[in-house]
Amino acid sequence: MEPLVLYLGTRTYSTWSLRAWLALKHTGASFTEDVIALYQPGSREALLRRSPSGRVPALRHGDLVLWDSLAICEYVAELFPEARLWPGDRAARALARSVSSEMHSGFTALRNAMSMDLRREIAPIARDAAVDADIDRVTSIWTECRRAHGQKGDYLFGHFTIADAMFAPVVTRFRTYAVPLAGAAAAYAETMWQHPGLAAWVAAAQTESLAG
Amino acid sequence: MEPLVLYLGTRTYSTWSLRAWLALKHTGASFTEDVIALYQPGSREALLRRSPSGRVPALRHGDLVLWDSLAICEYVAELFPEARLWPGDRAARALARSVSSEMHSGFTALRNAMSMDLRREIAPIARDAAVDADIDRVTSIWTECRRAHGQKGDYLFGHFTIADAMFAPVVTRFRTYAVPLAGAAAAYAETMWQHPGLAAWVAAAQTESLAG
Repeated sequence: MEPLVLYLGTRTYSTWSLRAWLALKHTGASFTEDVIALYQPGSREALLRRSPSGRVPALRHGDLVLWDSLAICEYVAELFPEARLWPGDRAARALARSVSSEMHSGFTALRNAMSMDLRREIAPIARDAAVDADIDRVTSIWTECRRAHGQKGDYLFGHFTIADAMFAPVVTRFRTYAVPLAGAAAAYAETMWQHPGLAAWVAAAQTESLAG
Repeated sequence: MEPLVLYLGTRTYSTWSLRAWLALKHTGASFTEDVIALYQPGSREALLRRSPSGRVPALRHGDLVLWDSLAICEYVAELFPEARLWPGDRAARALARSVSSEMHSGFTALRNAMSMDLRREIAPIARDAAVDADIDRVTSIWTECRRAHGQKGDYLFGHFTIADAMFAPVVTRFRTYAVPLAGAAAAYAETMWQHPGLAAWVAAAQTESLAG
């Protein structure tokens, strides 16, 4: 197979990079990581040299360059069907895509108020009603998925899927900003926090240079 | 096949509903439309009764209820492969998903400044730099897709795909807000404006009751 290069942003901050990276990592395929330091002089030019949208993540596969976390996840799922990045059951797959797409386009209040920062000291922030509504919606998605698929494994749809990758940055935010969780949502957040891929990403974030 | 019910918002305003509707309509399948009047007293409760996310569009297929425009498009593409809602070529499909996902999660400045309003008198608005940057990015996507696939048909990837459905509301916005277009972007916007599905939606929007 032609070489795969995944263009990523600073691991400490780049939630969308984390999502695509988790999906690709899950396949076991070998790939090159090219990290572009975000929020630095020249970041925009460096991004535009690699990604048509000027945003990360982007994936190069031979001559093809594609972008956007969800589109990359779909591509990786097609390239590596044995990784089962979507549920095999059509109805479950439809729901996995529903929650993944809801994350992809939504939760603006939560994303703005609790930006991912893997080096931030764990401490709560004051939350407004919109953020609390987003938190409630996330935990109800997790709880409902775990209720429906809990007997098949520890992830949202049993085995690890793109839906887990999409919510992984939220798991880190809930931890960083000390959002109290209970029951199935708390158990799921702990499962994800222990996930080897997420743990490796968080460890790499601690030691990366933020200046690139 | 079990009956399909597509839950939609007010046609005049609901861009995400339009996207899913265009994809489903393209299949030729029969389906029921259930329109929920947006921005009315009781709208939120009516939405939550039909859609787990409280947002439209949502699709009911037998016992399954799924939601989010892009997830619905993916589901419809799986159900009706003969409709060719994604390009058949893997690389082209990856790019179609890239531009569709970029639309799905982005273009916030354009979406906020130029909300879809199919009854608004055609007239320009003052645009800031962020809106102009979004317009430039949309037209460069259209131009690049048409350059690469123009010999295969009149749509972004030759034949009509989900990518066209995703950009359809932007076509109406550029028209409503009198955004000047040139060359391949202007020709593509005109192709989409003439698309029978979009034309039917726009016509229905003129006569619907906004109060539900």
